[in-house]
Amino acid sequence: MYKHTCKVRVRYCETDQMGFTHHSTYIIYFEHARSELLRDLGHPYAEMEKNGIISPIMSLQIRYVRPTQYDDEITLHTEIRELPENYAVFHHELRNAQGKLVCGGMVKLGFLEAATKKRRPVPGELLASLRKEFEVD
Amino acid sequence: MYKHTCKVRVRYCETDQMGFTHHSTYIIYFEHARSELLRDLGHPYAEMEKNGIISPIMSLQIRYVRPTQYDDEITLHTEIRELPENYAVFHHELRNAQGKLVCGGMVKLGFLEAATKKRRPVPGELLASLRKEFEVD
Amino acid sequence: MYKHTCKVRVRYCETDQMGFTHHSTYIIYFEHARSELLRDLGHPYAEMEKNGIISPIMSLQIRYVRPTQYDDEITLHTEIRELPENYAVFHHELRNAQGKLVCGGMVKLGFLEAATKKRRPVPGELLASLRKEFEVD
Amino acid sequence: MYKHTCKVRVRYCETDQMGFTHHSTYIIYFEHARSELLRDLGHPYAEMEKNGIISPIMSLQIRYVRPTQYDDEITLHTEIRELPENYAVFHHELRNAQGKLVCGGMVKLGFLEAATKKRRPVPGELLASLRKEFEVD
Repeated sequence: MYKHTCKVRVRYCETDQMGFTHHSTYIIYFEHARSELLRDLGHPYAEMEKNGIISPIMSLQIRYVRPTQYDDEITLHTEIRELPENYAVFHHELRNAQGKLVCGGMVKLGFLEAATKKRRPVPGELLASLRKEFEVD
Repeated sequence: MYKHTCKVRVRYCETDQMGFTHHSTYIIYFEHARSELLRDLGHPYAEMEKNGIISPIMSLQIRYVRPTQYDDEITLHTEIRELPENYAVFHHELRNAQGKLVCGGMVKLGFLEAATKKRRPVPGELLASLRKEFEVD
Repeated sequence: MYKHTCKVRVRYCETDQMGFTHHSTYIIYFEHARSELLRDLGHPYAEMEKNGIISPIMSLQIRYVRPTQYDDEITLHTEIRELPENYAVFHHELRNAQGKLVCGGMVKLGFLEAATKKRRPVPGELLASLRKEFEVD
Repeated sequence: MYKHTCKVRVRYCETDQMGFTHHSTYIIYFEHARSELLRDLGHPYAEMEKNGIISPIMSLQIRYVRPTQYDDEITLHTEIRELPENYAVFHHELRNAQGKLVCGGMVKLGFLEAATKKRRPVPGELLASLRKEFEVD
């Protein structure tokens, strides 16, 4: 298993008239968490795209537990629990400053050759780095 | 069952550098579909909030099948299949101009008293309107 | 002068905790108005990009007069007042259902060859269509 | 004069199909910069709203100089150059990792009593803190 943690603060424009963070915002935070995880692992997603690989979302689910508000600091916990060769699954858990669960979710990503839009396996270098992390664990 | 259909066009800002509509956009389209459904049913969500009831999302899942692009016209098909008394479930299906499935998902909403943030049942008038639609069906 | 009008409804996610439409939203509405204007003129922006021309924003100004809220219907009035050959200027005015001014602004766009990112003049066909509209006027 | 600096990284969802950061994103970054500035000054905007004061945007202008892309780190430079009593003006300058100007702009904010939506002067404590900074300068 590979675990990653980073933080984000709720922006004003991300709130809605209910006074809470809009529910679509957490999908953006999930994406931010994956960006940071890949950078910290040494494989920034920006480089993956420069190498001609894109990684669209295949499916996503999220359960909302507690609201957050403007300026709240949220901790994004992300886990990769398995290493399939043809897709990647990220488990996300967002917690507020008191450590209470805000929402939890799961996102499945595929990998495509950007030029042909054909399915392809998880990039070998990324998989190798993750495998190393799994061994350490 | 109650079925509703409306249309939306992909905005430029909703695309990303992959050249497709960003995956979080469809969550916004789902919300748009529910807004239009409630208005067409005679119970605009704006009025519900004026009556002191808010309706936060409890959970959401979505499966992405085909990408869309800037300026694509998308048809939003929404169904309410059951009438529980304490929450509402919307089934969304988005189709492109060729009628092909773009993505499908399910959103579960709760109902709260805005003043106290306490759980409450689905507003009686909304439930009554939906029941009438179910009988017709 | 070429005048164009279209409508948009405020989405829930476009509001903020102040209870009003977030100020960045009107920038998106301006863009939506330009999209609709170009389509109605027979030169959809999507086609322009397919022909290898992109049109980034050079500058933008906006004055906010009255707030709007979720579900408000807003009329977008757009004017092209001059026909320079190397850029385009759109004057936007947004009005609420009572016809009162919500905000007004001006957006200046340049034109680039997508491949080289070099500046180029306004596409000839677009300019010709606008000139015809100016004559009619 | 009061100067403030903070950083932000371009999110994937903030790009568009042109391959660059969407022009509306910088408006959000301007807002982020003001949020951070007010917090660092000891007057978080969230507290201002809790004290019954809201601060809507009155006008905004922005000039775009250089594009940015996904994952680019941008430095947000903000200046308050004058201390009028009835509104606030923020000058924003965004620079890329090479220190080159991305865009520059100016945002004017008013202050309202949240309860009555009546105009009111800049909160006294905020003005006092800024005056101290101006003296130091």
